[in-house]
Amino acid sequence: MTTLRFRTLLALLAGFAATPLLAQSTYDQVDPMIGTGGEGHTFPGAVAPFGMVQFSPDTDTTCVLRACYSHAAGYRYEDPTIQGFSLTHFSGAGHSDLGDVLMMPVAGDTVPFEPGDAGKPGTGYRSRYDHAAEVARPGYYAVALKDRGVRAELTAGTRIGVARYRPTAGALPMHLLLDLRSSLYNYPGKVLWSSIRLRPDGIVTGCRQTRGWAPDRNLCFAIRFSVPLTGHAFVSTETDVAYKGFQGPGRGSDAVAERAGRALVARFDFGTTDRPIEVTSAISSVDEAGAIANLLSETGDFDAIAARTATAWHAALDVLRIDAPAPMQRSVATALYHSLLAPSVAGDVDGRYRGPDNQVHRANGYTFRSTFSLWDTFRAEHPLLTLVQPATTTRDIVRSLIASREHSPDGILPVWQFQGRETWTMIGYHAAPVIADAYLKGIRGFDADAALAAMVASATYAPYAGLGEYMARGYVPIDREPEAASKTVEYAYDDWTIARLARAMGRADVAATFAKRSENWRNSFDAKTGFIRARKSDGTFRVPFDPTAINYGSDYTEGNAWQYSWFVPQDQASLVRALGGDAATVAKLDAMFDFDTSKLDYSHAEDIAGLIGQYIHGNEPSHHVAYLYNYAGAPWRTQARLTQIVGSQYRATPDGLSGNDDLGQMSAWLVFTALGFYPVTPGSLEYVIGRPFVNRAVLTLPNGRTLTVISDDLDDRHPYVGKVTLNGVPVTRAYLRHDEIMAGGELRFVMQAAPNTTWATRPADRPYSSSSAR
Amino acid sequence: MTTLRFRTLLALLAGFAATPLLAQSTYDQVDPMIGTGGEGHTFPGAVAPFGMVQFSPDTDTTCVLRACYSHAAGYRYEDPTIQGFSLTHFSGAGHSDLGDVLMMPVAGDTVPFEPGDAGKPGTGYRSRYDHAAEVARPGYYAVALKDRGVRAELTAGTRIGVARYRPTAGALPMHLLLDLRSSLYNYPGKVLWSSIRLRPDGIVTGCRQTRGWAPDRNLCFAIRFSVPLTGHAFVSTETDVAYKGFQGPGRGSDAVAERAGRALVARFDFGTTDRPIEVTSAISSVDEAGAIANLLSETGDFDAIAARTATAWHAALDVLRIDAPAPMQRSVATALYHSLLAPSVAGDVDGRYRGPDNQVHRANGYTFRSTFSLWDTFRAEHPLLTLVQPATTTRDIVRSLIASREHSPDGILPVWQFQGRETWTMIGYHAAPVIADAYLKGIRGFDADAALAAMVASATYAPYAGLGEYMARGYVPIDREPEAASKTVEYAYDDWTIARLARAMGRADVAATFAKRSENWRNSFDAKTGFIRARKSDGTFRVPFDPTAINYGSDYTEGNAWQYSWFVPQDQASLVRALGGDAATVAKLDAMFDFDTSKLDYSHAEDIAGLIGQYIHGNEPSHHVAYLYNYAGAPWRTQARLTQIVGSQYRATPDGLSGNDDLGQMSAWLVFTALGFYPVTPGSLEYVIGRPFVNRAVLTLPNGRTLTVISDDLDDRHPYVGKVTLNGVPVTRAYLRHDEIMAGGELRFVMQAAPNTTWATRPADRPYSSSSAR
Repeated sequence: MTTLRFRTLLALLAGFAATPLLAQSTYDQVDPMIGTGGEGHTFPGAVAPFGMVQFSPDTDTTCVLRACYSHAAGYRYEDPTIQGFSLTHFSGAGHSDLGDVLMMPVAGDTVPFEPGDAGKPGTGYRSRYDHAAEVARPGYYAVALKDRGVRAELTAGTRIGVARYRPTAGALPMHLLLDLRSSLYNYPGKVLWSSIRLRPDGIVTGCRQTRGWAPDRNLCFAIRFSVPLTGHAFVSTETDVAYKGFQGPGRGSDAVAERAGRALVARFDFGTTDRPIEVTSAISSVDEAGAIANLLSETGDFDAIAARTATAWHAALDVLRIDAPAPMQRSVATALYHSLLAPSVAGDVDGRYRGPDNQVHRANGYTFRSTFSLWDTFRAEHPLLTLVQPATTTRDIVRSLIASREHSPDGILPVWQFQGRETWTMIGYHAAPVIADAYLKGIRGFDADAALAAMVASATYAPYAGLGEYMARGYVPIDREPEAASKTVEYAYDDWTIARLARAMGRADVAATFAKRSENWRNSFDAKTGFIRARKSDGTFRVPFDPTAINYGSDYTEGNAWQYSWFVPQDQASLVRALGGDAATVAKLDAMFDFDTSKLDYSHAEDIAGLIGQYIHGNEPSHHVAYLYNYAGAPWRTQARLTQIVGSQYRATPDGLSGNDDLGQMSAWLVFTALGFYPVTPGSLEYVIGRPFVNRAVLTLPNGRTLTVISDDLDDRHPYVGKVTLNGVPVTRAYLRHDEIMAGGELRFVMQAAPNTTWATRPADRPYSSSSAR
Repeated sequence: MTTLRFRTLLALLAGFAATPLLAQSTYDQVDPMIGTGGEGHTFPGAVAPFGMVQFSPDTDTTCVLRACYSHAAGYRYEDPTIQGFSLTHFSGAGHSDLGDVLMMPVAGDTVPFEPGDAGKPGTGYRSRYDHAAEVARPGYYAVALKDRGVRAELTAGTRIGVARYRPTAGALPMHLLLDLRSSLYNYPGKVLWSSIRLRPDGIVTGCRQTRGWAPDRNLCFAIRFSVPLTGHAFVSTETDVAYKGFQGPGRGSDAVAERAGRALVARFDFGTTDRPIEVTSAISSVDEAGAIANLLSETGDFDAIAARTATAWHAALDVLRIDAPAPMQRSVATALYHSLLAPSVAGDVDGRYRGPDNQVHRANGYTFRSTFSLWDTFRAEHPLLTLVQPATTTRDIVRSLIASREHSPDGILPVWQFQGRETWTMIGYHAAPVIADAYLKGIRGFDADAALAAMVASATYAPYAGLGEYMARGYVPIDREPEAASKTVEYAYDDWTIARLARAMGRADVAATFAKRSENWRNSFDAKTGFIRARKSDGTFRVPFDPTAINYGSDYTEGNAWQYSWFVPQDQASLVRALGGDAATVAKLDAMFDFDTSKLDYSHAEDIAGLIGQYIHGNEPSHHVAYLYNYAGAPWRTQARLTQIVGSQYRATPDGLSGNDDLGQMSAWLVFTALGFYPVTPGSLEYVIGRPFVNRAVLTLPNGRTLTVISDDLDDRHPYVGKVTLNGVPVTRAYLRHDEIMAGGELRFVMQAAPNTTWATRPADRPYSSSSAR
């Protein structure tokens, strides 16, 4: 242990030494509470970088206080009670699931077996708590459970969660409640089956199958206690069982060796003590043996695990050192933290994992990852990982995508997958841009032929969401398939990334096919209105047409014509031309941002939040839009809009995110934007220059080089970019190339009060488009 | 293929050559229809020796026509329709389950998706059939499905089932319906989850979890068709789904690549044809990959598989050649067939299997077997296997038992297990006699220390069915645990087998402990009434006491004092003394057989069938009782009772079994009895001599030797044994030793009209008892 801790210390020091010292480590700037209020849907609990376990409090699993949507991460800052701590959580999802293996410590003689009502503090086993007594750091969370008489601390390793529970009123009988009925969220019939078992060695194992966002998800667990049990109870609260079967040994009592059913709750007794009790938990989507192996793979007590994970977070976060005003510093540091949670580790320590076919497979030579929120994360989250993470992270992601396709019953790449299981949420085949961007950036270590084959298979699978019609017609017809306008333009972009990869691999035939398909956005563009619109199978645009209407299953996906009409990342220059040129485009962008929405009601659309006119920062289709002024020769307008967005959409407070973090996409947007550039077109190898929000930042790149971003004269009164230099050489174009970033050096912005209306305005200086053919 | 068939032929000829030729091969004498009517609960379908797949028709899965009990094997001879063919069945169980992956071929345009009503022929996809057009042989079954226009033939390999479906009215559109909702039996909520998937290579796979006799049983399947599919539909008929989730590709249609849910039915289309279609199916309790590997492990078309399995059955059956009157010949041959079905292969071809913990394990160096109906089969079924099967069969059984204990959440040996899953049905720890008997007979190849440890663990696990009380008091108190009288005497016998094994292994300490425990039957013996009775925790026998009462959960297990008062296999001589000596014992035995039950009604007790007075041949507690006259110096009374039992309880007809075959126990009883001896006390290495029912039989022993049983002057007028010789030497004692049997040679009975009241009557010539200390 001493040796280990000494090594940890060395690693810590080495980590510091590798990055030039700014005032404070990024780790210290992170506030995991940011996004836990409002509709950010982040969780405050303990997690290691990309950890399989997200050990975090749940405040309402039954959607009593608000819609289930609001509790997609289990915890909501505004809630008065904590129900317990569960092992799995999404960070910023727009849909509710996980919350597996909920546990609640209890000091005292009374152990309620029901959670009580989230709307009625003091009922059931839930407990009131104060934010003042709450601590949240990367990899560490603590809270005082007032009704349960316990101070709880949580930490996590990659595949484990560790809790330390200490009675707050002296020696008392200590218990742990484990509720296998609880889930996020918890409608009748969600738990298909569950089991729990106390092994002779004192390890508790079990599995649970739930029917939730992903149908039939299996999760096993293994739990070890730091002290011997003095007793236990495994209770089934299930009613209406048609056939109960024969009873096993001791099944008349609750102190049985095992129990199985659809509604299980367990109590573990530790005797009367004033000493803390440590509970180490691991999960596996494969089986109990996998969970045990994961449990045993990370050794040490609470403090040792917490220290190791703190070191890991220092290493992961301190690649970006930030010097900025305190709230911005906290926002960006926390954004980086939130961008390092998914795609999370989903494979066991022995390489096994459960795939989209619900069968068990083994990852050889890489770590299987899942939680792919690809419609969100292809935009900035994955590009950010290529700058802040070792190449092996993206390699593992790509290998996981390819493996998932191999085991997909439909033979296609993931759409929205977690724990290896497909949910079919959102649209597109956005694994394509992720893979293409990785390959084009030089990331290797995966089978490129298999990758391309997987992308082509996904792009040509007729049963998938109108793809058959899309291939036949060049657009998705709205009378055959909902959200046709969004699908058409997103397919066209994904097609372009396939063409890019195929060309890079020397596959001219595939490249030609998909380059042609990438033009399909034009088939959905209505020159008359200047909007991307849904076309019917008879070729006409669907009417009536209201560019402000937002409805699920309408012509657009979680949005309307205002947001979706800007989605031509592969050829924004052609879109500018189609819109009538630079002035018309700038005017239309301004019209979008300045739209008066005071008379519109979008409250029925959960994901629609963070409105600036018709610009909706809380959802992804808008994310690149502010940067599009650059394509119309008006970079200073991009800068102004970024000032407006960052100033209104991010705060260093629990309600500081204007929408779901979406597994890091909202956060990655901020990290890029704060540094002064953004990947509008993944696959293009370009970053569009915006304006920085940091005084100084040092990014240690995966190749060991450093890129230092310096913003001279940055303050509220100097919101415009006057000049940009890279290693002292003026940058006169509106973008940076990936190789320039990776070469490191110094990127300097000179900020000024007035717009610089001449910088990077020439067509030749504008960012990537197909017509510029870079 | 030619080579293979030629080899098959050679093997066939070799098989014949190894056994002296009697008139007809045993294979040809088997009638799988025996036991399919009445309450025999055998199935007529296709199965290989100890096959994992039992491919057989189901006539009523919904308990419409009678109680579910009557359809424990799916098929009931009396039923008018066949619902379909499913892959798994118990042979003779007293409880209903399995019937997995039900398939029904359909010729014509109309494919009903509902099974229809078993009470209403002509409804749904079920079909009328005629027994006249039915063929059943070991490994082969055929029937004409009149309403479906299909002639169906079934065969099976060890891990596969093969069907051949031929349209009977010329070229018609051919379909196969697969109903994952169907099960034996099928109460609401039984199917926890199921999935089905069409793979690109045309193989269909899926899994199903059911909550039945064993809670949470997982079974996967893989199916291959001999012709390409022209279409398919995967349909969910589930209602009341609280959350439906997002829809995958093509989920609006039924021609999807996969579907999952709790109520799935599939249709496969083969186009219009008059050619037969072959469907090969495999199962795995592990996963789909296991099912596919099993599917691919046995190659060849229908005819090839059928021929291979016929060869296997010839080899397995022809170890016993029987010369007897035709009905007896058929009864005994079929009994041997029924004794070679369980414990069946439960592990995949790669060695993996699912254990009692519902987790996946791997059998190294042996084949995992399950379907352990141990309360039944420890008596005669397992002892028979040691005579008619290679030692590896019993070795694999013992290793499977040990492995099951290692993976048991309760840490004990199986009680009633199938597909690796425990049902907790019946009483005792009768894996102990199975293992002890095997070891004492010289069967090795398993870890004897682990075996003994497993037996001791099972016998000392306090939570198990009153064992804690039993260990503390020397009996199970009826006010603490039901069926206490039965449990006390069965535990005491099991304890004796543990002592026997321990002594043989030189573990004197363990032997002494369990030898002492084996005396516990005395604590339940009431000298006043002469019955084994249930004692309360205060030491008194429970009153009121009615030795004729049969009720579930009463003092006895599926029986009453009459049947259970004879269960002291480890020391029948002491029981005779306790009953007052020979004459009193004979009188009590006679009173049992001659009891007037005309005024008693046992119709509420499903397992109570085959009554001769209070002797109940249809259930196991009586099985050794007729042999007990031998322990009281009256062997001729045993002979008379056997004549009475065999004459009334076995017929070579579908209703020819007087009770459930119980996974071979009813049948093994007949095989032994027909040969003239029976293992009253497994673990004693002795067989008690009864009277033979064959004119001549040749048993090829596992060591290659042959034992020829000859009955001189055997006919209805000569029911008594006058003289017994072994290799010409008179046998003057009432038992044979295992080593004598295994040495082979000629066992000759000279039958006579009158009882021989002097043969083997001296106390020294009586069979094993603890007091005789052999």
